[in-house]
Amino acid sequence: MSYRHSQNNYNRNHHIVDDDVQHFGPIANTIITTLSQDNLFWLCMVIVEILALTLIICSICWMLQIGGFGFDDNSIFNFHPVCMTLGMIVCNANGILAYRSTKNWSYKRQKTLHLLLQSSAIIISWIGIASAYIFHDNKKIPHFYSLHSWLGLTALIGVTISVITSFLTFYYPKASAVYCKLTLPFHIFGGITNIALSAGICAIGITEKAIFSLNNKPDVNQQYSALPSIAILLNVFGVILVIFTILVVWMVTKPEFKNKYKQTLDSHYALRRQTTLE
Amino acid sequence: MSYRHSQNNYNRNHHIVDDDVQHFGPIANTIITTLSQDNLFWLCMVIVEILALTLIICSICWMLQIGGFGFDDNSIFNFHPVCMTLGMIVCNANGILAYRSTKNWSYKRQKTLHLLLQSSAIIISWIGIASAYIFHDNKKIPHFYSLHSWLGLTALIGVTISVITSFLTFYYPKASAVYCKLTLPFHIFGGITNIALSAGICAIGITEKAIFSLNNKPDVNQQYSALPSIAILLNVFGVILVIFTILVVWMVTKPEFKNKYKQTLDSHYALRRQTTLE
Repeated sequence: MSYRHSQNNYNRNHHIVDDDVQHFGPIANTIITTLSQDNLFWLCMVIVEILALTLIICSICWMLQIGGFGFDDNSIFNFHPVCMTLGMIVCNANGILAYRSTKNWSYKRQKTLHLLLQSSAIIISWIGIASAYIFHDNKKIPHFYSLHSWLGLTALIGVTISVITSFLTFYYPKASAVYCKLTLPFHIFGGITNIALSAGICAIGITEKAIFSLNNKPDVNQQYSALPSIAILLNVFGVILVIFTILVVWMVTKPEFKNKYKQTLDSHYALRRQTTLE
Repeated sequence: MSYRHSQNNYNRNHHIVDDDVQHFGPIANTIITTLSQDNLFWLCMVIVEILALTLIICSICWMLQIGGFGFDDNSIFNFHPVCMTLGMIVCNANGILAYRSTKNWSYKRQKTLHLLLQSSAIIISWIGIASAYIFHDNKKIPHFYSLHSWLGLTALIGVTISVITSFLTFYYPKASAVYCKLTLPFHIFGGITNIALSAGICAIGITEKAIFSLNNKPDVNQQYSALPSIAILLNVFGVILVIFTILVVWMVTKPEFKNKYKQTLDSHYALRRQTTLE
């Protein structure tokens, strides 16, 4: 019933769009017809992966410019921005998109991929937090005083609890179908909130590190306000981060992109509900 | 047809929730029944307004602590955080929630309120940007070098263009019903993106101002890392800002809160479509 309803809804929506297209003239018509929702999704997916790669390269280039990677007192910090970008942004985003990027997989395999990517995201992020903690410890800088650290620690603890409880709710040992259905909207809202919040926290972190690493330089032309090449690099890093996050959230909330998954889920719950109630 | 479909959908959803509630025992049952979606909405709305007031008070208290308001070279900047909080966060959020907080108003009056609140938001925000610009000019600090300023200026130009084009699309002189229907999802996504982005930009600004105003103090106990009372105030400001934004986005995306509006809109477009096509 639920599946059929969803299917009807899908057809109805597509019918409306088809009707509307005729008002836009032949050129727009051709573009809209050629660029089907599926092609549009894969175009966005390619852009997302290119932006993700750019983000990782930006963070590595920046860190190489200000001391590179190592385990001494200073350069241990430089793992932090790279780990947080890779974990909280790139792995997290791919985990969120897992259900949409693997449309032909079985629901169980999709869930496994989602869980693996989100678990990698939190493990890499905890390593990133540890590197900043060890740096503060070595340099006798107080821990967790800034807004960046308050928000960052809260977000990471929140997402870690969420991954563990969601594993128990949706994966193994599964909770009742009714409980799954009631908690799923919070799981989805929490996940989208988390990636937006993570991007914001990263942008705060970029600004903090920019001021700390550039503004104590004796040469005025190398300070943040003079916009040396490194300042432009990190501003561009922040701008790409924002574009990346907006694109990921758009893809994950666009109804046309989630139809397949929604149908799978609806039939899945309809099936499980029947099994549970019978 | 569209209205009736939406009404059916609404009833169906409520029926499912009623079914599910029975699995949770009498106490949860009582809580869920007593706290209807309408009561829950008004509870959230009261919390939103209290948080909004707290945000404005926090920003004013902080600015009074670091020099107060005036038109001399230094204190002209202090209008900036207060204006941006009032404009891009508080007015913007209330504008976004306008359709849900005025459920019994006519659609036309709701639109007028939405337009007035969003217009106030951009006017107050441009005053806020002007105060920072004049401050930079007076102190011979370069303009628009930081990530905060890049993102902030882009967001404000974007939202200004959006308010003007949306006025012409949805308000006066209205575009065709088909065009309205096709652009509405982008208008809604853009608005939600904008408030999340604005909150992020504010959090970056808080961090910047915290470092600039605290870290050049000679007394180590007054620096940001020692967490003096003013640093706690501004960290709390940032945390409340995040909670406020998450709550507003949750309220505006929760399907149960937008039923009334959705129905109004669907019947509105059904009516206009008929009128246009006939």
